[in-house]
Amino acid sequence: MQKYISSIQNPLIKQLLLLQEKSRERKKTGLFVVEGEREIALAAKAGYEIISLFYCKEIYSESVLMHLINQPIDRIEVPLELYKKIAYRGSTEGIIAITKAKTHSLNTVIFKTDSPLILIAEAPEKPGNIGAILRTADAANLDAVFIANPKTDLYNPNVIRSSVGCLFTNQVATGTTSEIITFLKKNNINCYCAALKSSKNYTDVNFTSASAIVVGTESTGLSESWLENATQNIIIPMEGEIDSMNVSVAAAIIIFEAKRQRKNS
Amino acid sequence: MQKYISSIQNPLIKQLLLLQEKSRERKKTGLFVVEGEREIALAAKAGYEIISLFYCKEIYSESVLMHLINQPIDRIEVPLELYKKIAYRGSTEGIIAITKAKTHSLNTVIFKTDSPLILIAEAPEKPGNIGAILRTADAANLDAVFIANPKTDLYNPNVIRSSVGCLFTNQVATGTTSEIITFLKKNNINCYCAALKSSKNYTDVNFTSASAIVVGTESTGLSESWLENATQNIIIPMEGEIDSMNVSVAAAIIIFEAKRQRKNS
Repeated sequence: MQKYISSIQNPLIKQLLLLQEKSRERKKTGLFVVEGEREIALAAKAGYEIISLFYCKEIYSESVLMHLINQPIDRIEVPLELYKKIAYRGSTEGIIAITKAKTHSLNTVIFKTDSPLILIAEAPEKPGNIGAILRTADAANLDAVFIANPKTDLYNPNVIRSSVGCLFTNQVATGTTSEIITFLKKNNINCYCAALKSSKNYTDVNFTSASAIVVGTESTGLSESWLENATQNIIIPMEGEIDSMNVSVAAAIIIFEAKRQRKNS
Repeated sequence: MQKYISSIQNPLIKQLLLLQEKSRERKKTGLFVVEGEREIALAAKAGYEIISLFYCKEIYSESVLMHLINQPIDRIEVPLELYKKIAYRGSTEGIIAITKAKTHSLNTVIFKTDSPLILIAEAPEKPGNIGAILRTADAANLDAVFIANPKTDLYNPNVIRSSVGCLFTNQVATGTTSEIITFLKKNNINCYCAALKSSKNYTDVNFTSASAIVVGTESTGLSESWLENATQNIIIPMEGEIDSMNVSVAAAIIIFEAKRQRKNS
């Protein structure tokens, strides 16, 4: 289907805006919005079903567009003026997709190795932090990222944007803290929880077996459940005056120490 | 001096707003704005001269205020309505200071050890990235942070905010890339530049002598001058689909590898 829409009052445009703004709308419909060529291509490559593509000829070439996705998709051309109103990032990209959400269930997680390396973040709130974690997870080629007790919808446009599309390149699952702890035990995965008290220096821990690195929020840290069920609570020793580290930075430091050990083992 | 100001047209209030918004105004006057109790206390502790304090009684207790700074300072009470308009972060803190800038010259840098560990960032643009770098530098207790060819004013309110005050806990200097390279050579400091090509894995480099870790921008990396003058170009091997790492995350990974080596050496 090929359409031309120029009114912001059009029901399809209204739905697009709602899907960008409201987590509730995303949950209700099972749809979300991806903006930008690279992001849409990564989503398609990861098996996400693209429902409709909105594009602006003044910015985006239709011939490129057609090569992007090998699926029969609704294509909706919009004029520049309207595009500027519906684009989340301003008018730099020229292409926006409505996409079908996945379930991200723990049951569908598959590990390609016997000693997977997983990152678990409990209740991260800031979309920018979730995006940064997914970016690091991609660079480290982690086996999975789990979000425990999610506070923020994975399909929040700021998560997708700040992950630079890494939401689609990682195996991401969500669940309650209790469900994830059960999953780790069942799969014999060691659980290393970043904590502040009575913890072992993270460089003194052996991450070469199946390992999950677990980080909490910057304000309250991890919940008791995690600390009590940890194989070992770990700490990044801090020596400054403030001793406050961004959660995605802390996660990256521990992940890359695990990578270093695995390379040398 | 104790004043009460309720009008947004008052010249002092106008100056405060200008100092928040305009880098040019900060440069012209040599003044900048710090918001929040912790941040102001850290600035005062670091020897910054506080010129005037704006506070809102509805949010902030004057008795706490008076203990905060042991200097004769202009104190300006403002009503809640005006405070909400001048506060950069909304009305959560209740206290804002106009503060005298420092020079951040390379000439004034002092090292307390023979083998300092320094982070150098070339031309970082996003205030959030500069703030995150300063936060990590504090946690690692680095000997100094140098900004080469600065593109963003250190006193940008977003730098101060995202650094959670670590702009004041670190020894920070700025200079051109060429000035900083000369400084490193003169002081016999090894220079390890994060690069993408023909570089050594960062875990295979010995950071236990006097070392500077140098990172460039996410879009263009480091300039040729750095790569040519490096003791060794280094790389964090990436194994993902996107292979794009946030600059403050990359810096943190290398810094904490250096810390690990130094602890074990």
